[in-house]
Amino acid sequence: MREVAVVGVGMNRWGELWEQSHRRIWTEAALEALSDAGVDRVEAMYVGCMSGGLFTGQEHLGALLADELAMGPIPGTRVESACASGGLAFRQAYLAVASGAHDVVLATGVEKMTDVDGAAATYALSTAADQEYECYHGLTFPGLYALMARAHMHRYGTTERQLAAVAVKNHRNGHRNPLAQYRDEVTLDQVMGATMVADPLTVLHCSPITDGAAAAVLVPLDMAKRLSPRPPVRVVASAHATDTIALHDRADLARLASTEKAAEIAYRQAGIGPSDLSFAEVHDCFTIAEVMVVEALGIADRGKGGALAESGYTALDGRLPVNPSGGLKSKGHPVGATGVAQVREAVMQLRGECGDRQVKDAKWGLTQNMGGTGASSVVHIFRRA
Amino acid sequence: MREVAVVGVGMNRWGELWEQSHRRIWTEAALEALSDAGVDRVEAMYVGCMSGGLFTGQEHLGALLADELAMGPIPGTRVESACASGGLAFRQAYLAVASGAHDVVLATGVEKMTDVDGAAATYALSTAADQEYECYHGLTFPGLYALMARAHMHRYGTTERQLAAVAVKNHRNGHRNPLAQYRDEVTLDQVMGATMVADPLTVLHCSPITDGAAAAVLVPLDMAKRLSPRPPVRVVASAHATDTIALHDRADLARLASTEKAAEIAYRQAGIGPSDLSFAEVHDCFTIAEVMVVEALGIADRGKGGALAESGYTALDGRLPVNPSGGLKSKGHPVGATGVAQVREAVMQLRGECGDRQVKDAKWGLTQNMGGTGASSVVHIFRRA
Repeated sequence: MREVAVVGVGMNRWGELWEQSHRRIWTEAALEALSDAGVDRVEAMYVGCMSGGLFTGQEHLGALLADELAMGPIPGTRVESACASGGLAFRQAYLAVASGAHDVVLATGVEKMTDVDGAAATYALSTAADQEYECYHGLTFPGLYALMARAHMHRYGTTERQLAAVAVKNHRNGHRNPLAQYRDEVTLDQVMGATMVADPLTVLHCSPITDGAAAAVLVPLDMAKRLSPRPPVRVVASAHATDTIALHDRADLARLASTEKAAEIAYRQAGIGPSDLSFAEVHDCFTIAEVMVVEALGIADRGKGGALAESGYTALDGRLPVNPSGGLKSKGHPVGATGVAQVREAVMQLRGECGDRQVKDAKWGLTQNMGGTGASSVVHIFRRA
Repeated sequence: MREVAVVGVGMNRWGELWEQSHRRIWTEAALEALSDAGVDRVEAMYVGCMSGGLFTGQEHLGALLADELAMGPIPGTRVESACASGGLAFRQAYLAVASGAHDVVLATGVEKMTDVDGAAATYALSTAADQEYECYHGLTFPGLYALMARAHMHRYGTTERQLAAVAVKNHRNGHRNPLAQYRDEVTLDQVMGATMVADPLTVLHCSPITDGAAAAVLVPLDMAKRLSPRPPVRVVASAHATDTIALHDRADLARLASTEKAAEIAYRQAGIGPSDLSFAEVHDCFTIAEVMVVEALGIADRGKGGALAESGYTALDGRLPVNPSGGLKSKGHPVGATGVAQVREAVMQLRGECGDRQVKDAKWGLTQNMGGTGASSVVHIFRRA
């Protein structure tokens, strides 16, 4: 397998983009990535999208978007793994380049979520869980993550204040991200006092419904050094793992086994451990998710993820910043795009292009993207080439 | 890239399976493929499914089905390219083995289409076309293919009787396939006299709505020779190409550019031409589709696909049998499963296991799977190892 680098990234301004179509927001991000990479053709492309069918009535996005970019007859492949669709699209693009199947590959993610009403969006998102054994009985995603939060609080003494500290930190970072959906800072009291969605998660513990897209261009490392107008960033690890789809089948509701497994593989591939990381972009679809993810990644000891957020260790100026982009919480969560936007942030951080949210001396970055309640996880590690 | 072989295949009995769930039919096919291959573990799996969201309210099938097979934490990846989802899942599995990323990979496809009513199924299928520019204006898939049929008839003098000959041939083959949905033989008069759906396509020109699944196990060729209880079958070509998603954007409504392109690549990889083929399994979602596909594959001269069907050249005892399985027309068309079921037929034909639908002296087999009105095409070529 060949070494692979990212030479271009792109993203549109995320939000409730009622005036823009699905394909329009995708094309904006894709063209920006191509321009950033300094290329005008790719040999293949991947699209991460969770539910084109339920959100917009449009499947077959691989072909549609290759056409939209006027790049047919190149192969355009859609991959889906619920909210990890973007990370998985990036991974398939990585494998296409690493294997030698293609030299210049575009990895993208997109979701247009606000063209349906709230109930329809909640239903569409529920298709990431076990429809027959969880959702038909009334569970929604805030409900599932609330169960995980309660399990974590019960076992480890995690507090609502610690969970809220995740939201405060991520909004503080997102405040500095011009493409984020919600750039407002929030206080602990605001998070804890907001409208309750599923106890203990108020609305400010939850990531929003978002329209957005992101894109990245991957090439073999040796080509990157010749081609790229910007410093290339190496992909040093790519891992994907699964866990039970239903929460009730897990031995431990307060652990994310798929992230643990994917991280174990990724650290081995990269030859580093969590203490070597300069920053991590992780899947904070709910505040409890970030707490459990930093534990699964070995950034926090087991049960200490909440305390770590509260301590400032994962703040932008802390020892190991987590979600310098603002995370899903502040930047937004267009489910199919999220994993690719994490890659964009990692690449820009490693290039030193993040302005007032720049992580100092960034050398190694990790991205972690998750589907459902952690039934699938995709982990990548990047470093400056 | 390593040489790859298929060492196991599986498929359930296709039909309207109201008493079986989505995951149940998939698991039956997957377990049969594993048993056929003589393996009890795989390192990764791919699932082709067009619209789990619209047909069953269940996305995230990569993780769900890895879990259902009790094979988590292996990576389970869903890929989608409308009705070419199965072919594309097989191609991703092929790339995973060819690249060296994994040694034993399960490629599967599934669709559970009959849990929704006819109008909802028509809507779900329409998401394979350009929703904004075609379907919102009232076009359905029979309508789109009827436009293509009229263009072909106008340009080349193709007749309704020639189109009907495709249905007659495929039902004659499907009559000998114990897993086919519709095993009845039909006559030219029955096809032409059946209820009109979209002129000139009567209901017997159209493939049905089907519940079904299929699966295949892929390994490196050198491992296949050690491992397999059955004769391994080599994958000698794998290609994927796209075309405009909307019919109105094409220079020629009577040509399938994506199939032409994918076939060109595949023949080059395999080092053969269409005259070397022993048989082909192609995407006859409508009779006109088979006519256009055999032209795009070079089996018929341009404009002669209809005459070829009528001549008996593509019959089971003809010079180059097309759709010995019965094709989508008789075997059924659970959209995400179709491409993998084509692979199953090719493998069984090359092993000589097809009983009274066996193609004599089968050495080379081709499969062609198509999404939408040909916006995506996936072509594979196989031979006995």
